[in-house]
Amino acid sequence: MAETRPEIDGERLLGDLEALARIGATPQGGVNRIAFSPADLEARQWVEEAMRAAGMEVHRDPAGNTIGTYPGREPGLAPIALGSHTDTVPNGGRYDGALGVIAALASVRALHAAGQRLRHPVEVINFVAEEATMGGGTFGSRAMAGLFDPASIHHEAVDGRPVAEHLRSAGIDPEAVATAARPAGSLAAYVELHIEQGGVLDKAGVPVGVVEGIVGIRRYTAVFEGEANHAGTTPMDGRRDALVMAAPFVLAVREIAVAHGIVGTVGTLRVSPGASNVIPGRVELTAEIRGLDEATLDAAEAALQARAEADGAAFARISAKEPVVSDPAVVAAVETACRDLGLAYRRMPSGAGHDAMCMAAITRQGMIFVPSRRGISHSPEEYTAPEDCVTGARVLLGTLLALDAALDSTGEG
Amino acid sequence: MAETRPEIDGERLLGDLEALARIGATPQGGVNRIAFSPADLEARQWVEEAMRAAGMEVHRDPAGNTIGTYPGREPGLAPIALGSHTDTVPNGGRYDGALGVIAALASVRALHAAGQRLRHPVEVINFVAEEATMGGGTFGSRAMAGLFDPASIHHEAVDGRPVAEHLRSAGIDPEAVATAARPAGSLAAYVELHIEQGGVLDKAGVPVGVVEGIVGIRRYTAVFEGEANHAGTTPMDGRRDALVMAAPFVLAVREIAVAHGIVGTVGTLRVSPGASNVIPGRVELTAEIRGLDEATLDAAEAALQARAEADGAAFARISAKEPVVSDPAVVAAVETACRDLGLAYRRMPSGAGHDAMCMAAITRQGMIFVPSRRGISHSPEEYTAPEDCVTGARVLLGTLLALDAALDSTGEG
Repeated sequence: MAETRPEIDGERLLGDLEALARIGATPQGGVNRIAFSPADLEARQWVEEAMRAAGMEVHRDPAGNTIGTYPGREPGLAPIALGSHTDTVPNGGRYDGALGVIAALASVRALHAAGQRLRHPVEVINFVAEEATMGGGTFGSRAMAGLFDPASIHHEAVDGRPVAEHLRSAGIDPEAVATAARPAGSLAAYVELHIEQGGVLDKAGVPVGVVEGIVGIRRYTAVFEGEANHAGTTPMDGRRDALVMAAPFVLAVREIAVAHGIVGTVGTLRVSPGASNVIPGRVELTAEIRGLDEATLDAAEAALQARAEADGAAFARISAKEPVVSDPAVVAAVETACRDLGLAYRRMPSGAGHDAMCMAAITRQGMIFVPSRRGISHSPEEYTAPEDCVTGARVLLGTLLALDAALDSTGEG
Repeated sequence: MAETRPEIDGERLLGDLEALARIGATPQGGVNRIAFSPADLEARQWVEEAMRAAGMEVHRDPAGNTIGTYPGREPGLAPIALGSHTDTVPNGGRYDGALGVIAALASVRALHAAGQRLRHPVEVINFVAEEATMGGGTFGSRAMAGLFDPASIHHEAVDGRPVAEHLRSAGIDPEAVATAARPAGSLAAYVELHIEQGGVLDKAGVPVGVVEGIVGIRRYTAVFEGEANHAGTTPMDGRRDALVMAAPFVLAVREIAVAHGIVGTVGTLRVSPGASNVIPGRVELTAEIRGLDEATLDAAEAALQARAEADGAAFARISAKEPVVSDPAVVAAVETACRDLGLAYRRMPSGAGHDAMCMAAITRQGMIFVPSRRGISHSPEEYTAPEDCVTGARVLLGTLLALDAALDSTGEG
């Protein structure tokens, strides 16, 4: 075993990103690699070949996920997995997903170039259909984590055809997707590098985000019933204007979110009957809050409910998705890597869902964020500076090395 | 000439209201007399016969308005007209319009029963198509006042057929409607009794409203441009949420209206893109204000504009309809009538348009309001208590007598 410390080849990583961005490139500088499209399949093929060239054995699981395995030296240890996805939203960008796969590849390539094996085997996983183009998102990681819903193959894909049809045309048997499930503990850990998709790191000038978890999402409706009436003949003191009732609540959602250190948004608001000469009789709005901590979400929900009811609204929760907290051992490994590299970092939540969220069902997991310029993603304007891409890959490799040292056995810290 | 003071026959007036309500009655207790429908034509015929029975000569003008004339005793004086309309909105009530016609009829009947003629001839006018079922409203009074727009006969009626078709089937020549115009000064005054269509009198327990004028209406759009963004990944301090920008303006419209003693309403508000997980990037709303005094409307408009612009909105006026102030001689006559009858009254604006508004173009005009229960109108639930109906008619007759004494010559006070 060589003594050389493995190092990310930054030039090669940027070349790989560039090469991948050409597959499905749009004239506007974006990327169209909708899951199971010819461009998506070509990109997956490109990744497979790059995996083999970096010393990995490659297989596809029954859900279509590509798994490259770089052997370890201690028998009986479960693999540490790195990964993300190479599919995109329609007219997406070059970095969302792609950076995580390319950086995982670069990490193993660094080991291979140094002639080094870790105690644990290392897997690079290119998940299939992470974007919500096949009904819901995270299709491949759900399947691997045993969270696959058999009904989902009948859902409508973004083009209106059923998901099952897309699977079959990509050579995937819809009936066999569920067999991609891996048992809990079959991986020692899963680590994902991703662009932030928010403007926090970019604005603060901090190169690395240590993801504390993926936020829980709660959605509500608030319905304000006033009294529709003639806007000319009804005096101001005789009105029950549903929009005047609802406006303070819109501001309260923001205030309550800020007070609880979470995010909160009123994204839809409908006024009835909705004529310029009629006093609004009814307003129906949706509010959502997102945060990492269930107790905080509970407290914010209670505040929202109290406020809505004080404002005369009927308030109801319509959905709740629990937060997924990052594993402390993975968070510690990312922070160790940052300190070893002399990098500033910031702990932060992920406001969006990722494959890592699903993988939490079967293994320790954590994520590393790098800045996205102005927080833009899912757009041709998505941009992460080359040095930030390379930095992210160095942190990912450092995290892998730290976890390899810290984790003793299958799934145990 | 008899010395008997003419008196309204309250029982007979209520019987007339009841008889008229049976024409086009719905099972729910409402009335369907859409202009030019068989029920509307039947009601107009009923009114004509009642006019003749009360000693009037009757003719229809080329717009379809029914005019009953009760002769005066001084040659050369222009008639004082009383009136309203007997058409209704779809599924309307028994009082809107009908009360004004029945009370006008009852006033002339009182003169006739007392064997009395006034100095001026008296007209009872049953205007045609006041409700906005034939494109815009006040079809007949517009035509009489020379405000008829020839293009309006091509507009779509409430049933989708062109207005001209409805006119022809009622025996009205669309090409001749404009010839219904009467010159300015051809009437000495026009007075209309109407239900309030607001809850002011009902709430205050005041039996009579002396209408100071019909409000002017100004409408505006305010467009708030924020930045649409991911509701999960965009921190609260990095947002430009168009709905959070717009909510204080909704409240400001109310505050500014109250501060200026007028009414103000935000009746429509549209959020874009309008998804629960996307921060609103754009809000477009309409605001309207209504008031009697142009200078007050100017001041409120300036306050709205300043506030909208301070809140970051693009603000624009989209329409302005000038107020129509009641003639001081008519207002004085109504007040004289109330005092003579020992009735409490309140000066108030009309927030809705009426035939009187059009008649202002050719003569002095004014209106008398009686309470509508809970301000409800254009509905089967429309209700004015029998004693309030009779009181309104007594005030109308008193006003007629006061005007007859006060007005010296054609259109002069």
